[in-house]
Amino acid sequence: MFVNRRDIRIEWGDCDPAGIVFFPRYLAYFDACTMSLFEAAGLPKQDMFRDLDFAGFPMVDLRARFLMSCRFGDDVTVESRIIRWGRSSFNVQHQLLRPEGLAVEGLETRVWTGRDPADPSKLKARETPAEVVRRFLTDEERAAAAT
Amino acid sequence: MFVNRRDIRIEWGDCDPAGIVFFPRYLAYFDACTMSLFEAAGLPKQDMFRDLDFAGFPMVDLRARFLMSCRFGDDVTVESRIIRWGRSSFNVQHQLLRPEGLAVEGLETRVWTGRDPADPSKLKARETPAEVVRRFLTDEERAAAAT
Amino acid sequence: MFVNRRDIRIEWGDCDPAGIVFFPRYLAYFDACTMSLFEAAGLPKQDMFRDLDFAGFPMVDLRARFLMSCRFGDDVTVESRIIRWGRSSFNVQHQLLRPEGLAVEGLETRVWTGRDPADPSKLKARETPAEVVRRFLTDEERAAAAT
Amino acid sequence: MFVNRRDIRIEWGDCDPAGIVFFPRYLAYFDACTMSLFEAAGLPKQDMFRDLDFAGFPMVDLRARFLMSCRFGDDVTVESRIIRWGRSSFNVQHQLLRPEGLAVEGLETRVWTGRDPADPSKLKARETPAEVVRRFLTDEERAAAAT
Repeated sequence: MFVNRRDIRIEWGDCDPAGIVFFPRYLAYFDACTMSLFEAAGLPKQDMFRDLDFAGFPMVDLRARFLMSCRFGDDVTVESRIIRWGRSSFNVQHQLLRPEGLAVEGLETRVWTGRDPADPSKLKARETPAEVVRRFLTDEERAAAAT
Repeated sequence: MFVNRRDIRIEWGDCDPAGIVFFPRYLAYFDACTMSLFEAAGLPKQDMFRDLDFAGFPMVDLRARFLMSCRFGDDVTVESRIIRWGRSSFNVQHQLLRPEGLAVEGLETRVWTGRDPADPSKLKARETPAEVVRRFLTDEERAAAAT
Repeated sequence: MFVNRRDIRIEWGDCDPAGIVFFPRYLAYFDACTMSLFEAAGLPKQDMFRDLDFAGFPMVDLRARFLMSCRFGDDVTVESRIIRWGRSSFNVQHQLLRPEGLAVEGLETRVWTGRDPADPSKLKARETPAEVVRRFLTDEERAAAAT
Repeated sequence: MFVNRRDIRIEWGDCDPAGIVFFPRYLAYFDACTMSLFEAAGLPKQDMFRDLDFAGFPMVDLRARFLMSCRFGDDVTVESRIIRWGRSSFNVQHQLLRPEGLAVEGLETRVWTGRDPADPSKLKARETPAEVVRRFLTDEERAAAAT
């Protein structure tokens, strides 16, 4: 599966009195990295709202492991990939890497939603469009899928 | 003019590696206190969206002075009041108080907006409704206004 | 085990363009609720830094489930309890409740740390002091432990 | 004076239910841009803590004007420069630019501090070191200063 890499500078304001990243900020980084992953696959979120039956992919389950702490001024890289496509749910894995190795790992379970036709102010789980899933295949996977 | 008081506990996650509040968090407190001020005047923001020609009161100018720092675990009080009503703009003053005195002062200039009839996705400055301004008068001011 | 309840008002600035809480903010709420839980047990974090061999209880693993979304202006309650004490790690469970039921559940795994005697700038996992654990027992549990 | 430019992607989590940046986030951007400005001048904050009599440059006064709103997915540029050096205070100006022009302007007044010799847990205003100020001069200004 397609991998996206994003470099992040750890900012002063992301760190707590212990001098390390306040952990909810990692999850905000990961949320931004999920957007970058879709954008790298040709699907910026603002275009999906406009072009698809799409009303967001809210988080339903989240898991994170914190192995090494990061400090302000650190430059880290987040590698993001979708490791599972279900019918309407999918899993995004994020690995935040320091030169020494894996520092934080996040696993998001999100659900593809569209507007509820009965009440457009409400969201409803939807099958993830096949054209979306296809964007995340590597060339090899696409070739294999075509045979 | 009507004054609203709100107690705030300074949280660990609001503080930076120097152990003091990361200053943008004060401005988030103040934003919440502006909501509380309107709510105390009988105007919760969610009701205003529903009941009035109201699309928010975005900030156009902001001024803050930082006199004493605050640390996590501190309990502070914010006093908020509207110190000027213009035609569509108004000024909210916030004073964040520690037992020793004034720690942070904020002065917000906001503009009352409604939906642009020509394009409902856009906001347009509007005269603040008289019924809104009236809510912030003290009993004495209301009596004086009635004579 | 001892349960702490904390009321939280969902603020405008905690919500995203979908109008619901930006999920990392729930985790910031939970972090604050862990502090409140310790404080309710007679252990404010700032006192622990001063009085105990304590250098924080960093997060090592985090799990959250998002069952219902919350919107700005909502008033919710978080119930927090420690559901497991290991030697140096422990688990804090948070349940964020709306009138309709459980909205978000978080499970934190944290590790008690002290300063490394070899290098005081570093943290080292420590056995959680028995006097700390005892504070979280209910009267019944304390009576049972005494027999 | 030396100008630093930094590109910023507006993230979903920086925006509020109106779909625009929650204004305290602009001030967090500006704080990060002040760090970048010092770093571009050869003075990363973490090095200054280590190498200079430096304990931070806390904000004492802040002014911001909001001219155009920004939405998630927008790519903006912040231009930052020091527009005044006092004895111990200095002013950093930030201009957040969209393709259409100036969107947000911030003016920070910060104070250079060192540790109080009488009580190292306290900060004391200090004269900004001449070697720091010199780093922000352009080549022309340095030549002029040398004559």
